[in-house]
Amino acid sequence: MGSIDANPAAFAAFGAAGVDDGFQPLNAEDVRSYLHKSVDFIYDYYKNVESLPVLPGVEPGYLRRLLQSVPPTSSAPFDIAMKEVREAVVPGMTHWASPNFFAFFPSTNSAAAIAGELIASAMNTVGFTWQANPAATEMEVLALDWLAQLLRLPASFMNRTAGGRGTGGGVILGTTSEAMLVTLVSARDAALRRIGSDGVAGITRLTVYAADQTHSTFFKACRLAGFDPANIKSIPTGADTDYGLDPAKLLEIMEADVAAGLVPTYICATVGTTSSNAVDPVGAIADVAAVACICPEFRHHLDGVERVDSISMSPHKWLMTCLDCTCLWVRDTHRLTDSLETNPEYLKNDASESGTVTDLKDMQVGVGRRFRGLKLWMVMRTYGSAKLQEHIRSDVAMAKMFEESVRADDRFEVVVPRNFALVCFRIKPQGAMTEEDAEEANRELMERLNRTGKAYLAHTAIGGKFVLRFAVGSSLQEERHVRSAWELIKKTTTEIIKGEM
Amino acid sequence: MGSIDANPAAFAAFGAAGVDDGFQPLNAEDVRSYLHKSVDFIYDYYKNVESLPVLPGVEPGYLRRLLQSVPPTSSAPFDIAMKEVREAVVPGMTHWASPNFFAFFPSTNSAAAIAGELIASAMNTVGFTWQANPAATEMEVLALDWLAQLLRLPASFMNRTAGGRGTGGGVILGTTSEAMLVTLVSARDAALRRIGSDGVAGITRLTVYAADQTHSTFFKACRLAGFDPANIKSIPTGADTDYGLDPAKLLEIMEADVAAGLVPTYICATVGTTSSNAVDPVGAIADVAAVACICPEFRHHLDGVERVDSISMSPHKWLMTCLDCTCLWVRDTHRLTDSLETNPEYLKNDASESGTVTDLKDMQVGVGRRFRGLKLWMVMRTYGSAKLQEHIRSDVAMAKMFEESVRADDRFEVVVPRNFALVCFRIKPQGAMTEEDAEEANRELMERLNRTGKAYLAHTAIGGKFVLRFAVGSSLQEERHVRSAWELIKKTTTEIIKGEM
Repeated sequence: MGSIDANPAAFAAFGAAGVDDGFQPLNAEDVRSYLHKSVDFIYDYYKNVESLPVLPGVEPGYLRRLLQSVPPTSSAPFDIAMKEVREAVVPGMTHWASPNFFAFFPSTNSAAAIAGELIASAMNTVGFTWQANPAATEMEVLALDWLAQLLRLPASFMNRTAGGRGTGGGVILGTTSEAMLVTLVSARDAALRRIGSDGVAGITRLTVYAADQTHSTFFKACRLAGFDPANIKSIPTGADTDYGLDPAKLLEIMEADVAAGLVPTYICATVGTTSSNAVDPVGAIADVAAVACICPEFRHHLDGVERVDSISMSPHKWLMTCLDCTCLWVRDTHRLTDSLETNPEYLKNDASESGTVTDLKDMQVGVGRRFRGLKLWMVMRTYGSAKLQEHIRSDVAMAKMFEESVRADDRFEVVVPRNFALVCFRIKPQGAMTEEDAEEANRELMERLNRTGKAYLAHTAIGGKFVLRFAVGSSLQEERHVRSAWELIKKTTTEIIKGEM
Repeated sequence: MGSIDANPAAFAAFGAAGVDDGFQPLNAEDVRSYLHKSVDFIYDYYKNVESLPVLPGVEPGYLRRLLQSVPPTSSAPFDIAMKEVREAVVPGMTHWASPNFFAFFPSTNSAAAIAGELIASAMNTVGFTWQANPAATEMEVLALDWLAQLLRLPASFMNRTAGGRGTGGGVILGTTSEAMLVTLVSARDAALRRIGSDGVAGITRLTVYAADQTHSTFFKACRLAGFDPANIKSIPTGADTDYGLDPAKLLEIMEADVAAGLVPTYICATVGTTSSNAVDPVGAIADVAAVACICPEFRHHLDGVERVDSISMSPHKWLMTCLDCTCLWVRDTHRLTDSLETNPEYLKNDASESGTVTDLKDMQVGVGRRFRGLKLWMVMRTYGSAKLQEHIRSDVAMAKMFEESVRADDRFEVVVPRNFALVCFRIKPQGAMTEEDAEEANRELMERLNRTGKAYLAHTAIGGKFVLRFAVGSSLQEERHVRSAWELIKKTTTEIIKGEM
């Protein structure tokens, strides 16, 4: 039998190393130097982003003409990469950080969030189980409980372990799509178990429901989970409900489905749709996308949340947390883990087996996961709820002023009532303009505005009409940017209408 | 009709602002100050991480006892959050960055990757379509093409647009699980279309295959995609093929399935399994998990890749790129987009409609996506392929030396031949020890090692035996750390065996 020093061969092997330690990609001095250079770049970027064209004027394939297409063999100073970022990347970017960005929804951000993300990237832990990084798991749970308190979610959505107070739990995912997918799969599996003997073929009987204004990613998530396209029911909405889901119409369709032997499995309700910020008034069922509900005056949109099974919202949208950060809360974590738990030998550990900890890998698609709780916690810890509410109110106030300006100019109409910080408007038919002319004028308005580089707006279709979307809330945005954009919109509209008439 | 200055009401509305611009969470000065503080913290962290216990000794719920459980209302200086990170977070972390981390697979990292991630977090763009950030889309495509060249993938996997040379394409996803899920869904939908009239009920006939050593997340991804658990075939492996998939056995099972009217839909092959780094020798079908193949001497493990439909590998594992970064290449992007494309009105734009650009949202689960191409490009741009290969060879050389030391000590056995930088070993039965005693001794060895805080090893089960996994490659690791860990293993084994005998 061997003993401590009975293996001279082993020592010899190590002695004859031949291992080259010369390449140290994580050397602390290099890390500090590269990061300080990056911070200087970021400072300059924020100082200048307002003057950059929001939408770049590049053609497809532009980058490959500027950068080498073959991977380099030799090392290069970090300054070379930074030079190429300045000269080739920045000119081809759509600047979401620009205060002149009014398209889609803004991706808000903050100093605290970037710092949290940076530190998490450097620590670079993979917290799939509690044991794999207890601090990351517990901070994620804490941040979710904090945010649940700001949203005044029922205690049943609070975390059930680690000193939590409730029976439910939460997880941070990458996108709302993933939150939809995991809850759809969990609802699907529970329904299949309920209907029994058909096995997976039973899926042909399962139905899901959402308003036609629901984000397209919901319908994609349903297809990923294997639902029959014919059973994914898109409920028509109209101006009579401000494009929100009509509960009476939903009930009618569900009752007909039940009568036909189908099994209603999942309803998705949205508070603030992407298209027009419509609010689905389904108290009993809410897929919550509206960060604004941390403000008491908007919280009524979540009334009835105590009767839903799951809720998600994305701090990377309006809570100044850089991508990606989608929060999902569920009332009963077992309904998720029944579908998503894995337990391979190499991840087994005493803490998991004790049942006293949360292993967040069992509430998401993958196994690996970043330390995303840190940035979310840092945002709330540093700014406090009062400032977060103030920020949302300021965005809503700016959108309200913009809306009032649009309403006061009789060339325009506000197409749906503004609920939060999105204004949906268009040039209305006037003078000799037909409805077709107006459609063309609105398309032309958006294209001309975006070509100036001084503003970027997106569009949607509401009631079959082409409508411009003016989304307020980019983190660097101030009143003067909204005011300038409105001046540009008026001036461009005058040019277009003169040309038309 | 209105005109530029015909709307005094609009000006009045803006004039009576009442909007509070006082809270500026993305103020450039604050960003610079918070980030410099974070960089100093990271520098200290890397300087000290070697002396911190790799696994923390905290109990479940520890964090909630140290931090406030109610979200703060008021703002606090950033230094307060940093103080809590130092005092409450760091002591509860499992330090994946520690050079004494030998568990799972390391999450490698580098100065260039962290810098790329930081800059991407600050730019915070959402590149779902080419138009939404041309630079991000084109850099992702370029980085994937560079890496494909390093792996010597066939040109058919190169990007088909933006000046690319091939007909295929790639996308960066968050995890291998997502790569499995999107390719499984695409294969499922194509098979359902092929078999025709059954609709989604046809899924009961679709079968998928993988070796029993395949990561558990594959079986989970199959369930997410709705496959029948009975049709997810886990092919037994054994010591005769070093736990790699036996192509003859696979063929036999598939032929029996076809004879029974089933439809083989997907085979997953792994180069370097998580459990033991086994290599599935299925030239025709390779789900590539082995970054090592950027070194010519390991490339033969990918032979036959020209006949597979998709390949994925994760630079966040061994290519010094911080989480998350999984690369997926496919030969025919339409097979993915057929299942994953969405086209809502608010994302329509001329570039997408021209068909000349790649909209990466159509090759992933969600819509939103970070600018992950930047860090991957920065790693290759800054270090160059020669250094990346050198790094992998150095890790393999250290693992080889460790393996030789284990083999030279007759108390141990190497359970499966080492392929890359993972050594699977155990204390073998010796003296009066039974097989059960040896099992117990190995568990005890792992627990005692991990309790010291001086090393962290994980385990797996191979052929029914409890086996320790020694994974070399953490970015700060040098030969001396491997040597110290081996000394600790020998010393601890002597103590255990003395107690046993």
